[in-house]
Amino acid sequence: MSKTAAIIGGGVIGGGWAARFLLNGWDVQVFDPDPDAKRKIDEVLANARRALPMLYDCALPEEGSLRFCGSIAEAVADADWVQESVSERLALKHKVFAEIQAENPGALIGSSTSGFMPSQLQEGAAEPGRIMVTHPFNPVYLMPLIEVVPSPATSADAVAQACEMLTSLGLYPLKVRKEIDAHIADRFLEAVWREALWLVKDGIATTEEIDNAIRYGFGLRWGQMGLFETYRVAGGEAGMRHFMAQFGPALEWPWTKLMDVPDFTDELVDMIAEQSDAQSGHLSIRELERKRDGNLVAMIRALRQQGNAAGRLVNEHQRAVARLPEPDAPLVTQDRVVPVDWTDINGHMNEGRYGQLFSDAAEVVMAMVGADEEYVTRGMSYFTVETTVKYLAETHAGERVIVETEVTEGAGKKLRCFHTMKRESDGETMATCDQLMVHVSLETRRSCLPTEDVAAKVAGLAASSKET
Amino acid sequence: MSKTAAIIGGGVIGGGWAARFLLNGWDVQVFDPDPDAKRKIDEVLANARRALPMLYDCALPEEGSLRFCGSIAEAVADADWVQESVSERLALKHKVFAEIQAENPGALIGSSTSGFMPSQLQEGAAEPGRIMVTHPFNPVYLMPLIEVVPSPATSADAVAQACEMLTSLGLYPLKVRKEIDAHIADRFLEAVWREALWLVKDGIATTEEIDNAIRYGFGLRWGQMGLFETYRVAGGEAGMRHFMAQFGPALEWPWTKLMDVPDFTDELVDMIAEQSDAQSGHLSIRELERKRDGNLVAMIRALRQQGNAAGRLVNEHQRAVARLPEPDAPLVTQDRVVPVDWTDINGHMNEGRYGQLFSDAAEVVMAMVGADEEYVTRGMSYFTVETTVKYLAETHAGERVIVETEVTEGAGKKLRCFHTMKRESDGETMATCDQLMVHVSLETRRSCLPTEDVAAKVAGLAASSKET
Repeated sequence: MSKTAAIIGGGVIGGGWAARFLLNGWDVQVFDPDPDAKRKIDEVLANARRALPMLYDCALPEEGSLRFCGSIAEAVADADWVQESVSERLALKHKVFAEIQAENPGALIGSSTSGFMPSQLQEGAAEPGRIMVTHPFNPVYLMPLIEVVPSPATSADAVAQACEMLTSLGLYPLKVRKEIDAHIADRFLEAVWREALWLVKDGIATTEEIDNAIRYGFGLRWGQMGLFETYRVAGGEAGMRHFMAQFGPALEWPWTKLMDVPDFTDELVDMIAEQSDAQSGHLSIRELERKRDGNLVAMIRALRQQGNAAGRLVNEHQRAVARLPEPDAPLVTQDRVVPVDWTDINGHMNEGRYGQLFSDAAEVVMAMVGADEEYVTRGMSYFTVETTVKYLAETHAGERVIVETEVTEGAGKKLRCFHTMKRESDGETMATCDQLMVHVSLETRRSCLPTEDVAAKVAGLAASSKET
Repeated sequence: MSKTAAIIGGGVIGGGWAARFLLNGWDVQVFDPDPDAKRKIDEVLANARRALPMLYDCALPEEGSLRFCGSIAEAVADADWVQESVSERLALKHKVFAEIQAENPGALIGSSTSGFMPSQLQEGAAEPGRIMVTHPFNPVYLMPLIEVVPSPATSADAVAQACEMLTSLGLYPLKVRKEIDAHIADRFLEAVWREALWLVKDGIATTEEIDNAIRYGFGLRWGQMGLFETYRVAGGEAGMRHFMAQFGPALEWPWTKLMDVPDFTDELVDMIAEQSDAQSGHLSIRELERKRDGNLVAMIRALRQQGNAAGRLVNEHQRAVARLPEPDAPLVTQDRVVPVDWTDINGHMNEGRYGQLFSDAAEVVMAMVGADEEYVTRGMSYFTVETTVKYLAETHAGERVIVETEVTEGAGKKLRCFHTMKRESDGETMATCDQLMVHVSLETRRSCLPTEDVAAKVAGLAASSKET
């Protein structure tokens, strides 16, 4: 049975939460008194529908239903989770929590606040133990980090339920041990923002030069390892203690400089706004969002392939949501969206990616017959020896495609598949692939017979294909 | 004629510089009195030889020669560039610069220092105008950013030459407008390091939690956009001024907190070292380096495909170093290293990537006949309609492979290629591909005849293939 999330407060953050829930099969009920709320959330949803499914090599659960409600009470009545993303005014948040808990006293409530600690949020609440901070990062539909911050009054059970729910959405709940101002990540963002304001104000660097200093330098390191592991590597074989002994004193002197805050004057605001216009003003915000999302999808997919960092999180989430097809011919061995990193100079899916799609389809067949990852660790697998691909129609990023597979030969060392790739929306055939595989020993790298168990399943699939 | 770089001071940074120069075809002369210098540089070089060529879809220039020298004078005598990476002691650096300029007064000298400003480095120098800071980031063989910091005494011509040279190595010279302590990027690193020490010391988060807060959150954003452009997007349609109006005051209060520096006590060092061991101690530094480099290669390649950020820099560098093959059959249409992101669960190159390699080979043929990017903008291209690939041998990440292509049919709308992929080291054939392409109008998406110019070149390649 599908679950229901209540989103109190729309906008970019609330809309991002709504998208995360919807695209993971939850029903969503939104309350936001802003007459523009529906338009704003629809815009975020359009971005999310394009980007999030591209992270995965399988179809996500069927999208849930989205309903706009006329009151908080209506939105939260039957909600399994309430996400509050209203303006950063404490009195407003207290009023919202009171209304939520009057209607649904047991509801789990997460606040997107970056400015308040959970103990502040809980002041005067009927059920303080159900309230915690669940602080996301923009774009919420792509960024995995959620800072989960309980106060001592938050129930441990509520926190455990929250972490389980967030993980099921493909998010990474980082439980913060003690509540502090600005949680964890924003502490770093504040420190960097302060330094950046000084550099612009003092004419050392423009906004574009600062962005380049970040994205061509430590930004790349931090996207995959973070701060301490990066420095551990820099310290070499002697490890972290050595790094600190070596660099600790050298790092000390700049600590004492420029720790005060530049005045947030109109001149400084003008300077930054003008530099930012010069840097990015030729692109609209929508174009910048598309660019950002394309970059993030491609980078996270690259990390998926390496099995590290944010990519590892998506791999785990995919394992949780992907299902093997029913063993009825034709097998639906792929059901996925074409990601942005599969297109080429002609603006359509590169021919090599058709091969990858069919290869992925074959891996599903292998999993079905028991020639899976565990089988590979036992030293056996199927290798492809020949493929013939016919390209019949163009495919573009964002299109949902399926592959139907028939096992046309399955005896001895041979496993032969005929794959048909179709556009999901209208069933048009876009390409076909005749693929011959041979069973191999990973020790000798030569062909050999599969185990009896695998052989029987291969024969079964081949027989069921013949029947159709 | 190849150029010569002198590397004064080995280690991780000097070794990284040596690798950048060598792998871009420069000869390198190293001076480092450390008896372990050769071993250390060889280790960095081994990493670099594995990782850097994977960023490119073409062969880099032939590697230059590496020579270890017994004195600074010997190392710098005929050098076009001198890179100083000795310990961060000003008196030592002054002594090194004096020896360099006594031997080679006109040499351009870049210092890897993060701790000193160029005007400090120039004190007492015979030729202060030839000295500047060229501050790299670890790993130097993969990270594009170089902060180029002149003092008012540095000659503008020297800075221009330095920037041109660095760009030719695939680096991004960020010219810093005014010299300041810690240049630009280290200002941010200091600020983040200081906050991180507080968070660990106060028991708010462990080193691993902090790394996760970074790599699952803003690290991903910063790897592709940086700080200001990210915030510009967050501000929405109203732009940067709106973002600052909205978030400026909210961001103000944490600025005034925790601006002092935690004492760098033994207890704090122990705490961080132990947490770092718990986080990463199961992997050796070599394993961590491999993991980091694999992640960086895959992420930068993902950004290449998007044409953005660090990927755009590599695209530009590749355009500068790649050459079309000689038009003698068989055409060598690919000469490249298999990157880490091309392998699959079986540990070898995924079959889909064979298709991509042959597709890239076909694009070289298209470029040779004039059906290039400019032709695409004019509304015409060749699309592949059928391929048959035979997989004959396994290929692994890091292997250098070539593709030889024969144009077996080239008349009317048809362009047919037969590609043979070979291991570069021993010439073994690893796969073949018979590829049929048809000329199309990108407007109607239907087949049509190529321009006369393209048709003539296609016919020429087909004829020369027949002759062999």
